[in-house]
This record gives sequence, structure tokens and C-alpha cells, in this order.
Amino acid sequence: MKKTIGILGGMGPLATADLFRKIVLMTPASCDNDHIRVIIDSNPQIPDRTRAILEGGEDPVPQMLSALENLEKCNVSCIIMPCNTAHYFIDRLREHAHTPFINMLEVTAKRCAALFPGKTAGVWGTTGTLKTGLYTRALEQAGVKSVLPDEKGQQVLMDLIYRVKGGETLKDRAPLAELMADMHAAGADYFILGCTELPIVVEQLNPPGDFVDPTAELARAAIAFCLE
Amino acid sequence: MKKTIGILGGMGPLATADLFRKIVLMTPASCDNDHIRVIIDSNPQIPDRTRAILEGGEDPVPQMLSALENLEKCNVSCIIMPCNTAHYFIDRLREHAHTPFINMLEVTAKRCAALFPGKTAGVWGTTGTLKTGLYTRALEQAGVKSVLPDEKGQQVLMDLIYRVKGGETLKDRAPLAELMADMHAAGADYFILGCTELPIVVEQLNPPGDFVDPTAELARAAIAFCLE
Repeated sequence: MKKTIGILGGMGPLATADLFRKIVLMTPASCDNDHIRVIIDSNPQIPDRTRAILEGGEDPVPQMLSALENLEKCNVSCIIMPCNTAHYFIDRLREHAHTPFINMLEVTAKRCAALFPGKTAGVWGTTGTLKTGLYTRALEQAGVKSVLPDEKGQQVLMDLIYRVKGGETLKDRAPLAELMADMHAAGADYFILGCTELPIVVEQLNPPGDFVDPTAELARAAIAFCLE
Repeated sequence: MKKTIGILGGMGPLATADLFRKIVLMTPASCDNDHIRVIIDSNPQIPDRTRAILEGGEDPVPQMLSALENLEKCNVSCIIMPCNTAHYFIDRLREHAHTPFINMLEVTAKRCAALFPGKTAGVWGTTGTLKTGLYTRALEQAGVKSVLPDEKGQQVLMDLIYRVKGGETLKDRAPLAELMADMHAAGADYFILGCTELPIVVEQLNPPGDFVDPTAELARAAIAFCLE
């Protein structure tokens, strides 16, 4: 029986489309039939994760469970979530799930340890993700040192993330270049694109540097899970 | 109750990802929550449609019904299929469906009639799609005159489609320009990109002319269905 990938998506929708495209492009396939079946629930009614964590905003878990139930009705073999911040809620989702989750932060941390041994990761993400310490802990468990942006740098990231979510095409590379120079000075050797809009930011602005894309790592891990 | 789009996909997977991305980008939205919920079953185990039609290959309908059932379990409000050739089987699918299909060829034909009244469409597609006469009939029903490529022109199209499928980046515009000149001479005023690789061909070669992209038209129609 071939395995099926379930994507609990919509956080945001473009990042979900990006993950799906990466799964297709990264699958070893020479015709349609070599590809892996993928079921997606892109549910943009899931309330903002950052607001829920930092400001006591609406709990996103009920809408996430609605998507989880849809995926399980379709008998998916694993569940992946293309939203770093959403992983804050993964233990609550697992209480209801009958299907294994592949944790995007864990697979990213393992990849960092393998690709850049002894080096320091600069972690980018939403304020919500970074304040929860989710990445720092996942990286520590994989033996990876990390540094975070300062407050000004964090504001630059949030501005870029919300502009991409709003459908804007970015053109001005200067704010991101300044953030990268500041973080290099603070010890960062490479950067983790720890919000699913950030690969799109980097693709549009194309700054020089080394990057680890958790969306691509999640795609790689899900493909390996299904083809092993 | 907000409406949900169901995508019966996997024919091929990259075209499915392209349609999903177009839906996200074409939806009027300024934040995640403005987007439309989309359920996708990308089922690449659906047998080759062209082979089934032209060579008596395996019937794709049972695997298409498997995806249809998944989408209906998730209570989608409409079903769309990002594969021109798959529409050959739409009446058999409708016999089993409890959900309205939006027909890509019909919405494309209506758009042609609205955008280019009285003009003649040059129809591009795979040999399989064109031999079924699917596009010619849909265009006739919308009152749109059309012309097809000649045999040499059809070989040019198939060559470009397979080079894009093989991952090549096209540079030589001459064969396509010659095809367009021949079809202009035969009466074509604009061109329908009736195979999911053709928007990529046109994006890469950027020939001057007017084009209608059925994937974009399908996205537009599904968005309108959900937001009306």
C-alpha cells in the first residue's frame, strides 16, 4: 500500500502551495505515476498563531483539528504542517491524532547539524515562533548553536512576512541585507528561514548567503517517510 | 457558511500545484483569513488520460472517483480538475458526484467569447486533447470560432511541451513564432494555452501575442463561485 502525505495547511495558503510544489519537485519521478499522493486541507480560517501565543488571541486548535479530521478521513499516512509557529500546538494536536506528525523544527535542526557542523545558526521567524523558544530548543537538542535577531531586526522580518502574506512582491533588499550583516557580526554563519513566508522573501530578494529552508526540509522528510 | 474549493488533482502534480498557487494569488485577500479554504487530493495514481482515450489504456475513472470521494468526505462546495484531457471523463464523474463541477474548458470558452468577441481562437494542446475535439466543442457552444495547428505546428508544440516537462529552460523563440505566424495566417487572432505546460513555454519565450490560460480561468471561476 503506497503512503499518502497529509498537509495541515492554510497557515498561510501561499506557504502551503510552496510546500506542495517542493514535494512535487523534490520527489524522484519520471512520470505522474511515480509521484506521492498528497491530501491538503488549506484552511485559512485557522486563527493567527502568533496572536494566540503572544496576545491571548483566539485559540487556533479547534480549526486545526477540523483540518486534521479531514486529513484522517482521507487516510493519510503522516501529517505535516507548513507553519513553524503552529508547532507550538503540536502536543495538543497529537492528543487527538491517530496519524504520526513529522515535526518541521526537529527535521530542520537535524539537517543544520549535518550540513554545518560546529557553525552557528541565525534563526529567523515570527516574533511568536522566536519568543516561544521553539527553534532554540529544537536546535539545542540537535547540538546546534544559534543566535536570534535583535528587536530592530525582528521588526524587519515581521514587516517582510506580512507583506508576503498580503500578496506583495518585494523589491528592496536593503533592510534584509542590514539584518544579515548585524547577525553575521553577532556570530551567525548561516540562516534558518523559520517562517514559511521567508523562503518566498529570500526567493524574491535573492540576498547572498547560506540558508536552511525548513519547508524544503519538511518536504524532504515527508518524501523519505513515504518512499522508505 | 463559507464555501470550499475541491481540487481533483495529480494530473500532473505540478499542474495541480500551479492551480493552487494561482487560486491563492488571484484571491482578493490582505491576510490569511481572507483566503478560501481549499481541499486537494493530488492523486498521481490516476492512469494516463491520453493513453486511455487514444490507445485503450487503463480506465482512469476509478482512481478519479477515489479522489472525488475524498473531496466529498471533506464537504467541498465545488470540484475543479487542473487537467484539460481529464474533462473527457467529466460526465462519468458527474454520475457519482453530489457536488457541482466547474468545467475548465467551458469557463475558458466563455472567457474567450467575452475577451475577444467575434475573433478566432488558435487552440494549443497535446495531440491527445486536440484529437478528442473537447476544446473545439466547448468553443463552438460559446460561439467562439477556432483553428488548430497543422501537423508540423503540432509537432512544434509537443516538442516544447516535452522539453518543459524535462526541466529544460527554453531560449529559441523561432519555432513558436513560426507556428504563431502560420496560425495567424489561418485566421487565429489569439491563442488558448490548452496544456498545463504551455503557460510555462509562453512565460519563458515571451512571444508577442494574446493568450488565454485555462488554469488561470479555472482559478478565477472557482474563486468567483466561492465569493459570490
